Amino acid sequence: MDIVCLVFDGITALDIVGPYEVLQRLPGADVKFVAGSAGEIRTDNKFLALVADYSLDEIKGADVLVVPGGFATRALEGDDDLLAWIRAIDATTTWTTSVCTGSMLLAAARLLEGKEATTHWASLERLREYGAIPTGHRVVEQGKIMTAAGVSAGIDMALTLAARIAGDEFAQAVQLGIEYDPQPPFDAGSVAKAPARVVELLRAMYGARDM
Amino acid sequence: MDIVCLVFDGITALDIVGPYEVLQRLPGADVKFVAGSAGEIRTDNKFLALVADYSLDEIKGADVLVVPGGFATRALEGDDDLLAWIRAIDATTTWTTSVCTGSMLLAAARLLEGKEATTHWASLERLREYGAIPTGHRVVEQGKIMTAAGVSAGIDMALTLAARIAGDEFAQAVQLGIEYDPQPPFDAGSVAKAPARVVELLRAMYGARDM
Repeated sequence: MDIVCLVFDGITALDIVGPYEVLQRLPGADVKFVAGSAGEIRTDNKFLALVADYSLDEIKGADVLVVPGGFATRALEGDDDLLAWIRAIDATTTWTTSVCTGSMLLAAARLLEGKEATTHWASLERLREYGAIPTGHRVVEQGKIMTAAGVSAGIDMALTLAARIAGDEFAQAVQLGIEYDPQPPFDAGSVAKAPARVVELLRAMYGARDM
Repeated sequence: MDIVCLVFDGITALDIVGPYEVLQRLPGADVKFVAGSAGEIRTDNKFLALVADYSLDEIKGADVLVVPGGFATRALEGDDDLLAWIRAIDATTTWTTSVCTGSMLLAAARLLEGKEATTHWASLERLREYGAIPTGHRVVEQGKIMTAAGVSAGIDMALTLAARIAGDEFAQAVQLGIEYDPQPPFDAGSVAKAPARVVELLRAMYGARDM
């Protein structure tokens, strides 16, 4: 099973590493990291580099495509070569998935027209610009397309996908393998739950960047 | 604030990327990835490479040290140079932390003697070999040492640490930034909760490897 993980400069690392950590454990998984050019890409803050072993033009298809997000996606929404590649790979996939603002790339590639989808909460309403229907759910499944909310939601998405691909029991074994029994010290992980001051603090930080 | 993330061949990627994604958002964070030699390291299944920008001998201290795990740690428990480096860095830290079997490296470095600690559930009892006191908690804080359970528990540990360093409100803003409002599709993330068949399935898989 070919699992293709898109990466790019400015990616949010957990967007792709969360799903990867789950999906690489599927039976027969062969995971390929791919970028515009093969080699190192730097995450959003430049502290961490991941290696893309493949360039886009080396990858012609996938069983599962994972498109992550990060602040960089805003510019990539206008990258016609990348969007054409996403459309071409999607034409071959069993599952096309996204995490966080990776959904904006699927949307810009016109794969979400008329479909429900999710993305990072701060970008949710922008899905409408591409004809998608934003929902506040953490994981949204529409046919073969599965979108996840911000950053850490990719883990929940990938476990959902693992169950579709390999069955509930195997997905549970993966969950146990990564000991995913979340116990966050606060209940502030969504706009609905976070204190208003925390939401405003973060919106102010985001306001300085172009989401 | 110098945050030093140890990486090595055979690492479990999420062990380090989970905490990294949280800690890099702290005010003034400067995160360094360090390995025996600078350059690419490959994760447990070889599909993903991370880049260590620094070698061990270039890093003489840290405010926060993060030691991740993976199947590779079993062999590294006998790596005297690495253990000496961990002890030397720990002598300079405000916080020394581990995720998953990274705790076994702290234990082998004799940093957990007489202390409560946690690690991946499948290795928990082995902490006793080094005089540590295993507990089933997801995050264990003992003085300046904070250990986390398996793989995904590093996110919970890092949010707990973020609150200690930057306050509860800032930690909540980080949690909202990574939209960490976990909704796993199953409740099978701990040995206590997973169906017995799932635990046995995974134990059989692990039995083929030397934990």
